[in-house]
Amino acid sequence: MLVGAIEAGGTKFVCAVSDEQLEIKERVSIPTTTPEETMKAVFAFFDQYELSAIGIGSFGPIDVNPQSETYGYITSTPKVAWQNYPFLLKVKERYNIPVGWTTDVNAAAYGEIKKGAARGKSSCIYITVGTGIGGGVVIDNHVIHGYGHPELGHILVRRHPEDEYAGTCPFHGDCLEGLAAGPAIEKRFGLKGQELDESHTAWDIEAYYLAQAMMNYTLVLSPEMIVLGGGVMKQAQLFPLIYKHYEQLMNGYVATPKLESYIVPCGLKDNAGITGCLLLALDEWHKTN
Amino acid sequence: MLVGAIEAGGTKFVCAVSDEQLEIKERVSIPTTTPEETMKAVFAFFDQYELSAIGIGSFGPIDVNPQSETYGYITSTPKVAWQNYPFLLKVKERYNIPVGWTTDVNAAAYGEIKKGAARGKSSCIYITVGTGIGGGVVIDNHVIHGYGHPELGHILVRRHPEDEYAGTCPFHGDCLEGLAAGPAIEKRFGLKGQELDESHTAWDIEAYYLAQAMMNYTLVLSPEMIVLGGGVMKQAQLFPLIYKHYEQLMNGYVATPKLESYIVPCGLKDNAGITGCLLLALDEWHKTN
Repeated sequence: MLVGAIEAGGTKFVCAVSDEQLEIKERVSIPTTTPEETMKAVFAFFDQYELSAIGIGSFGPIDVNPQSETYGYITSTPKVAWQNYPFLLKVKERYNIPVGWTTDVNAAAYGEIKKGAARGKSSCIYITVGTGIGGGVVIDNHVIHGYGHPELGHILVRRHPEDEYAGTCPFHGDCLEGLAAGPAIEKRFGLKGQELDESHTAWDIEAYYLAQAMMNYTLVLSPEMIVLGGGVMKQAQLFPLIYKHYEQLMNGYVATPKLESYIVPCGLKDNAGITGCLLLALDEWHKTN
Repeated sequence: MLVGAIEAGGTKFVCAVSDEQLEIKERVSIPTTTPEETMKAVFAFFDQYELSAIGIGSFGPIDVNPQSETYGYITSTPKVAWQNYPFLLKVKERYNIPVGWTTDVNAAAYGEIKKGAARGKSSCIYITVGTGIGGGVVIDNHVIHGYGHPELGHILVRRHPEDEYAGTCPFHGDCLEGLAAGPAIEKRFGLKGQELDESHTAWDIEAYYLAQAMMNYTLVLSPEMIVLGGGVMKQAQLFPLIYKHYEQLMNGYVATPKLESYIVPCGLKDNAGITGCLLLALDEWHKTN
């Protein structure tokens, strides 16, 4: 049996085909331009195979509410060409097979819990800190869909006393993403993260914001692990700084595993999302077979 | 068939016995003193009945992790006599029947989704704002247990510009509970909430903190409804103020139901917890029968 996966990102779509053991037969990367152009290439790739199911992890916001009329759509994305695109419907129309549908970050969280850093747990949060901040949530071995899907990157945080930068978020200004995603680091100091010294105060500010988020996620969800990925998290010096601020802020109130094994770097690196999509495809197949 | 329920609060234990239709046969309130004294009265009450299962919703923090050695214990509560009390074990030893085990606020959330304001939904959050702030979470019709249980009342919030009160939380000072629970209102203004006029600035400050919490809960969990209970929420003027601040803060970023049917007063009033405990007892019975 073969399954397909679409990790649909804002700059590229990664598509893959694997067998039941997740051994990847072929994998392609397709630029995200217009739905017509991008999906034509996606379909041309999958048309070569006899697939039993597909899993989609899409950039968002997307509609994940099966009761909604726009279930399966990409909704109010700033990428105008993709607004109100009926993604799930188009894929189902083309192949008439079971299709799993969630956010790119939920897919990554699912990949990490099944095959990555959170393997063996039943709950985890995956956060990516890059050009934006997003996150996915797995509880009881399932990705969370409620009225919509989690948007972990936009929670409110308190100002670091040395930070006067206004924030980049077009909706909230200085929410977590507005203050701590890559563009905020660059605009605050005039240099990209990679260009800042490891001992630069930027990292203490960054860790302060991320630690507040980790504290709030812990208080709301009580996950067994929080997995951090994305370009900014390649700065390994952030982890001890996050632990320091987290300990000061939480002040022992809630028990968690030791921080070094609770707030951890992602295990699958750039493969978390596509792995999660393949797993969702297999789950979807098993639901109907 | 009869089932029992224990809603174990910090000042009183409410115990009830009902049939499968949740029709309550008898209900008692027992003061929370020492485990020996309180549990003696609890057992004397239940000993009168032939019960098939019991559901416990306990004040916390409690251990809800079945892999833990202290699973079923009340853990680090400030109520010294109850620290490290093996609550679940004691009840199971006495009756040798299935026993459901969660927090008092998770039980209330479960009551509200099955029989109260959130009836018909599959996910909801229940928040009580009283002498403390606590909350429970139901996702996919189940209460959330991860590494521990949610502690929604202690998330970090931003200061209202007119508020200089230090906060009452012994762990975090000015977390949500520290700034917005009943004692904070009283200490900030020298009057109890009930003694403050409806138009007092206290309510705008209170609503600002609660709205931040509602925004963060929405971004993290995407529930279908948030139900608010507890003494402070009896001040009905808070709801429109919460909606105003929530709208300003969220700024249209995430779609939710209309706020008036999304952030709502509890439906079961003081019966949410005991109803949830009875339902947990029935669930526990069905798992093994």
